[in-house]
Amino acid sequence: MPKATCFVWSGIAALLLTFAVLPASAQTGYGEDRARIEDLQARYMFALDFRDPEAYASTFTPDGVLDYGAGEIRGREAIKSFINESRKNAEAQAAKDVSGLRPAAGRHNISNIVLRIEGDKAVGRAYWFHMGNNNPKRTATLDSFGHYEDEMVKVNGQWLFSKRKIYNEQVDKWAARSSNPAW
Amino acid sequence: MPKATCFVWSGIAALLLTFAVLPASAQTGYGEDRARIEDLQARYMFALDFRDPEAYASTFTPDGVLDYGAGEIRGREAIKSFINESRKNAEAQAAKDVSGLRPAAGRHNISNIVLRIEGDKAVGRAYWFHMGNNNPKRTATLDSFGHYEDEMVKVNGQWLFSKRKIYNEQVDKWAARSSNPAW
Amino acid sequence: MPKATCFVWSGIAALLLTFAVLPASAQTGYGEDRARIEDLQARYMFALDFRDPEAYASTFTPDGVLDYGAGEIRGREAIKSFINESRKNAEAQAAKDVSGLRPAAGRHNISNIVLRIEGDKAVGRAYWFHMGNNNPKRTATLDSFGHYEDEMVKVNGQWLFSKRKIYNEQVDKWAARSSNPAW
Repeated sequence: MPKATCFVWSGIAALLLTFAVLPASAQTGYGEDRARIEDLQARYMFALDFRDPEAYASTFTPDGVLDYGAGEIRGREAIKSFINESRKNAEAQAAKDVSGLRPAAGRHNISNIVLRIEGDKAVGRAYWFHMGNNNPKRTATLDSFGHYEDEMVKVNGQWLFSKRKIYNEQVDKWAARSSNPAW
Repeated sequence: MPKATCFVWSGIAALLLTFAVLPASAQTGYGEDRARIEDLQARYMFALDFRDPEAYASTFTPDGVLDYGAGEIRGREAIKSFINESRKNAEAQAAKDVSGLRPAAGRHNISNIVLRIEGDKAVGRAYWFHMGNNNPKRTATLDSFGHYEDEMVKVNGQWLFSKRKIYNEQVDKWAARSSNPAW
Repeated sequence: MPKATCFVWSGIAALLLTFAVLPASAQTGYGEDRARIEDLQARYMFALDFRDPEAYASTFTPDGVLDYGAGEIRGREAIKSFINESRKNAEAQAAKDVSGLRPAAGRHNISNIVLRIEGDKAVGRAYWFHMGNNNPKRTATLDSFGHYEDEMVKVNGQWLFSKRKIYNEQVDKWAARSSNPAW
């Protein structure tokens, strides 16, 4: 057998075996994908609480949907405007503040992330809760909680929200149904 | 050398090299296993708070042990009954409720997950805390916290609790000892 | 072609293909590294709250820097002493306590971990919050929150903090700036 032929056969054998030998985990990459999605979920929170419209909108696909209860906000531009509004409102409030206190801080936290990942699509469930110190003593206070129901897609290797639906236990019609949203 | 022989040798070479070249990470899969265990831990919480006996029991091995302080509950059937009881109690309470308020919600959260994984066995430590709104204004309130000491096994590729021991800082005899439960 | 030559060619083919076929994820190992860093972050919390100087200091590089706001504490020895002091203070307080209550417990939690990892270096952002029960009824209370800005390095395969800077929303000059610390 000529050298070239042997090389080709070697290649085919190697190819087959690489796929056979690679653990399923490395091929489907649940750990890799979950890690990237956890990072996405965390960056979302920083962008939200620090009112960073660009960073926040960039966690969604261009036509991504955000629904925090009041209806669907569609597309990055609309989502960006939404955070911009919240930024302006916060700045207007701060400008009116004569207390001499430092600006109040608020922090959304995510926990209990459940993820089902299939190829370039993922479905997620997670809890969120919020704490803030918007009071005269800047005392840390838990003030709300709920859960997320998410759809995510991997676009050019990057995970993004195609839809985030927010359930909020502080508002009657935004509260969870009684059945388990996860599995 | 005949084609077939070359193919066999190619195969052996490929096999050896695949193992040699694969990063340790992909072989031992700490990231993969940890990702799966985090998902298990999160699904456990949804099943608990939404009182889903099947989903909750399915996070344990068939002979798994749950100990929340009052003694060991052994096996999926007993664990399922335990959640079923909690479901019935909650429904009975809700039926008696004449406040007109939406049902109260409770949420357990996990954080600080420490995991030592060796092959198909894992030992875990983590914090938990609970918030609820079982009050007339449905105000979010932190009400308890503690930690978990877990043993997990991988059965047919799926991580499950073989034992979960719960420490709870709200009850004298269920509180943590003073030494570091992790490492 | 002699058998030996074929084997060598097979090897080269296998080597090339293994690298070509391995998903980028398995090679760069974001998931693996993130998993190890999450474990580090969690062990740090257990060591802190259970006042375990050795375990706490071992999450830093030998010349690692801790800055909780009051200035930089440099090196494992200084960091160990810092936790030792906190241990002694807690024990002295407990010794003076005549309430008959079990010792009070405190728990730091981490959430929203954002990680940028490049080779053996990582930059991190995350939220923290603290709950405790240092009151006459041992009632769980949220009492503070803030965020971390971390630098980490992988030394001999083990991720460690080279620098942790702590922002704390309970103290004017330790509070976050208004711009997004993440990306």
